[in-house]
Amino acid sequence: MPDLDQILNRISSQMHDSDDWGEVAGYIPELADIDPAQFGIAVATAEGDLHAAGDAEIPFSVQSITKVFTLAIALGRAGDQLWQRVGREPSGRAFNSIVQLEQEQGRPRNPFINAGAIVTTDEVLGNRPPREALAEIVQFVRSAAGSDDIHINDAVAASETAFGNRNFALAHFLASCGNLKNPPALTLGTYFHHCALEMTVRELAMAGRFLVDAPGLPRLVSPTRIRRLNALMLTCGHYDGSGDFAYRVGLPGKSGVGGGILAIVPGRASIAVWSPGLNRYGNSQKGTEALARLARAMDWSVF
Amino acid sequence: MPDLDQILNRISSQMHDSDDWGEVAGYIPELADIDPAQFGIAVATAEGDLHAAGDAEIPFSVQSITKVFTLAIALGRAGDQLWQRVGREPSGRAFNSIVQLEQEQGRPRNPFINAGAIVTTDEVLGNRPPREALAEIVQFVRSAAGSDDIHINDAVAASETAFGNRNFALAHFLASCGNLKNPPALTLGTYFHHCALEMTVRELAMAGRFLVDAPGLPRLVSPTRIRRLNALMLTCGHYDGSGDFAYRVGLPGKSGVGGGILAIVPGRASIAVWSPGLNRYGNSQKGTEALARLARAMDWSVF
Amino acid sequence: MPDLDQILNRISSQMHDSDDWGEVAGYIPELADIDPAQFGIAVATAEGDLHAAGDAEIPFSVQSITKVFTLAIALGRAGDQLWQRVGREPSGRAFNSIVQLEQEQGRPRNPFINAGAIVTTDEVLGNRPPREALAEIVQFVRSAAGSDDIHINDAVAASETAFGNRNFALAHFLASCGNLKNPPALTLGTYFHHCALEMTVRELAMAGRFLVDAPGLPRLVSPTRIRRLNALMLTCGHYDGSGDFAYRVGLPGKSGVGGGILAIVPGRASIAVWSPGLNRYGNSQKGTEALARLARAMDWSVF
Amino acid sequence: MPDLDQILNRISSQMHDSDDWGEVAGYIPELADIDPAQFGIAVATAEGDLHAAGDAEIPFSVQSITKVFTLAIALGRAGDQLWQRVGREPSGRAFNSIVQLEQEQGRPRNPFINAGAIVTTDEVLGNRPPREALAEIVQFVRSAAGSDDIHINDAVAASETAFGNRNFALAHFLASCGNLKNPPALTLGTYFHHCALEMTVRELAMAGRFLVDAPGLPRLVSPTRIRRLNALMLTCGHYDGSGDFAYRVGLPGKSGVGGGILAIVPGRASIAVWSPGLNRYGNSQKGTEALARLARAMDWSVF
Repeated sequence: MPDLDQILNRISSQMHDSDDWGEVAGYIPELADIDPAQFGIAVATAEGDLHAAGDAEIPFSVQSITKVFTLAIALGRAGDQLWQRVGREPSGRAFNSIVQLEQEQGRPRNPFINAGAIVTTDEVLGNRPPREALAEIVQFVRSAAGSDDIHINDAVAASETAFGNRNFALAHFLASCGNLKNPPALTLGTYFHHCALEMTVRELAMAGRFLVDAPGLPRLVSPTRIRRLNALMLTCGHYDGSGDFAYRVGLPGKSGVGGGILAIVPGRASIAVWSPGLNRYGNSQKGTEALARLARAMDWSVF
Repeated sequence: MPDLDQILNRISSQMHDSDDWGEVAGYIPELADIDPAQFGIAVATAEGDLHAAGDAEIPFSVQSITKVFTLAIALGRAGDQLWQRVGREPSGRAFNSIVQLEQEQGRPRNPFINAGAIVTTDEVLGNRPPREALAEIVQFVRSAAGSDDIHINDAVAASETAFGNRNFALAHFLASCGNLKNPPALTLGTYFHHCALEMTVRELAMAGRFLVDAPGLPRLVSPTRIRRLNALMLTCGHYDGSGDFAYRVGLPGKSGVGGGILAIVPGRASIAVWSPGLNRYGNSQKGTEALARLARAMDWSVF
Repeated sequence: MPDLDQILNRISSQMHDSDDWGEVAGYIPELADIDPAQFGIAVATAEGDLHAAGDAEIPFSVQSITKVFTLAIALGRAGDQLWQRVGREPSGRAFNSIVQLEQEQGRPRNPFINAGAIVTTDEVLGNRPPREALAEIVQFVRSAAGSDDIHINDAVAASETAFGNRNFALAHFLASCGNLKNPPALTLGTYFHHCALEMTVRELAMAGRFLVDAPGLPRLVSPTRIRRLNALMLTCGHYDGSGDFAYRVGLPGKSGVGGGILAIVPGRASIAVWSPGLNRYGNSQKGTEALARLARAMDWSVF
Repeated sequence: MPDLDQILNRISSQMHDSDDWGEVAGYIPELADIDPAQFGIAVATAEGDLHAAGDAEIPFSVQSITKVFTLAIALGRAGDQLWQRVGREPSGRAFNSIVQLEQEQGRPRNPFINAGAIVTTDEVLGNRPPREALAEIVQFVRSAAGSDDIHINDAVAASETAFGNRNFALAHFLASCGNLKNPPALTLGTYFHHCALEMTVRELAMAGRFLVDAPGLPRLVSPTRIRRLNALMLTCGHYDGSGDFAYRVGLPGKSGVGGGILAIVPGRASIAVWSPGLNRYGNSQKGTEALARLARAMDWSVF
């Protein structure tokens, strides 16, 4: 077996070889002001080890990666009934497109595009006050990661609200189609807050272990559900770059606009990478590249 | 010349021959509860006469017909600069579609679909408090109609706000594209209120005279602008039924979801009809039929 | 009344003031090789006069303008049944778009976009050999123009066939939806040939007189049908620039990719312009400009 | 390890428990006339065994499943240059949609929708006569399956041509965008013929072994390419039902309108199922159900 620490260090170093870091997300100051030339990676193995390299101690905004956690919670609450409100097909569109939502009459294509994640958030919210739902989400992530340090960055959530016109459009559109149980502002408030969770790649790799399905790792959902979550991550986890990610990396993964990616090697490992510059699909440029190299080096692929 | 009163009475009577009144708009209680089996018609001529038949004394919610008045005011304020924010092409879509708005990056196709009317309202609103802008709109309509009785129905405006998720989606989408100068709630508040103007067909026919361009009638905008407003009404005034209306009636016209239609015979007359049941395009069913008959009987067509 | 000859000469001269002639159509050599810096205009009046200026003796490929003549013939053959195969709403799309055709399940939006004109050609073709249908079309145009010189340019038709992949795609798509009675190649052969009709602006202005509806002019279709043809030209005659043309010119018109435009002043005149450079909608740039000036100078507008 | 024969027999039997066989493809007589109440399944293992149950000896039209073989050949000829002509993202559309093709300017979303497969066929065709390209394709499949019995059904190919208007539309559209090297009729002839390959599930399971990547199995492409082909099958192999298939079955797979599905368990097995009735996505209804059961019973999933 190859030496994982050595590989991670080499990849981390290689990431600095070229200056093409991509573009940081520009829609809120908290993300726009981040230095793109950063890279961190961490791997939590089925054996219980944690390996890391690069900027592995810097917390970043996980953003859409929380959609995996909220989906797991929503499925726990609603079961397969959830699929009446949201589909599970790749969208073939940008993450925040409203076109498809109109064509499909308010049923988002999958839970990982923004509209779909607003619906799963609405399901998690239920009839509770937002702070109770948020407490459950934070607790789920902390349990998964085994760390009570993980928290929500309120300044980021406030910025998301202030600059969130596109998401407000999506939420009101969902409401106009009868696919929102709570007022748009309430559901969106919850959504913006859980997207503002901050973690280091160490914490994120730890938090992803519940999707590895290996003995000794935290068991938060059933094996069948784990497989389904991984299937959704593989087909829909990178928006309109999901096919490309599957082709190049070959692992289930979920990206966030903050530059993080969580990838799962079923039965083997949970991987977190972070590099804030994004490619044209809105996924971390160096993060994707690093995962492709790691998967090749470790012979990790589901295919 | 045919006897206009006789023709109007005959048409009004014929409208009751069949029971196919169409469907009243169902999205707010104030409209959903209206009896569809009503019909009124009025014609204000270039000679200064007013002829009416049927339910000509019942005030109804003019809804989208006010888009003509706000467009006239917006053009007065912004001139041709307005066309940088909104196009003037038929949409080929439903009145409240958001698909096209995404494809055209936030520039609505024309000022008569909802998104376009929200933009013109935003232009009329400017930096003023909404009540000042609304006062100007009401004053414009009253001047055009020569009647101070015309007013806004606040209950309708409140209902529009309460059930206005689709319009909120449009407004937030416009804002996300940078095509709204005011906060969505402020512009929409103004929009919902001017759409809640109430008039009888008598008042509406009088109010439409400023588009006839004849000596002795109120002159609120220049002859060139009148022609252009009429051109826009003909190509875009009936949403995705505009081609059909041009084909069957042959006059510039603007419909409202309250069942009213304002049609203009350039140089000759301003016509208002009202019948609350709508056809599949969202335009008054009996109103369209009556206008087709009146145009044929009077040999009124721009073609 | 203004002196029409003087106005036409002035406009023709003004057209040469700027060098922005637009781009000639580049998809077949016969059109791509034409010098864009040409302009001709002709007006046939209700009084029976013919006025012309500029390059009024040069035959050009009328292309889509023949769609008006074939529509008139198709309506004569099928009556209102034609509207079951083709709509009459503006398309909000480019002239050769196939997107809308799929969304509307093979029923083209109107008879003036390519797909719609292929359907009307198919109707005109009927069960006859193409040369019989073409003979009827040519005879119709010659009768309208009062000239036997008008002919089809076979080289253009051959080029259209050789470079006609987009139209073949449209025709096969229509066939796959069951909206073509003849094999695609047969209908398209007829279509490419009638689009290859050549006329001077003098001949085209004469040919357009049947749409003016004035005593003494050729009467080829009924007054009701004339109005409807004009209505369709106004709402749909300039593809996705129809609203703009109505706004700026205010007359029913039909453009062709060869740079010609036929415009009708109901009861007054038939106007033909030609300048081969096109604007971004695919309509003659100088031709549109000249019509706007002529309409203003003569106070010709339907509005 | 479970007894595979026993499991296959049980599944085959269970498939006959309900009468909901789905609808056979109706667009050509050769498929429309097939009795839907048939089911066959075969598994070729990495150990070199072949297990089968049900209607495993009946040849059926593999149709789109050949897209996997032609893609493998096309990648062998063009390498990664192929991706300049075709994408690798899920389409979010029906298999024969032309909408997306227009929006993406003639570059099909992936090689498994019809438009994409026409492009890969065009690549395989190259400058050769179609029969040479077809000979290579047939030889590839025979080598993969280890059987010289596999052949093309010419009657099916002839029917595809006769009823192939939608595919002709796609091919001409591709040609109009410059994305076809050969004349549409030539490329389509090749396409229709390789889609008309016939096999039994036994033969298809054998033919699929080259995607398993296990010692002792035929090695026709490199391990890296195998992974990528499997990735494409998982994300795009079931048209707009790909997400659902990944969710329910969890294996790379490619379906054909003839009712066959080829699924791969990387490193373990190649599975072929056949049942001619299709679900609403155009994929075999009982075939999908059987694969879900088999995957569960054998604990076969890539996730």
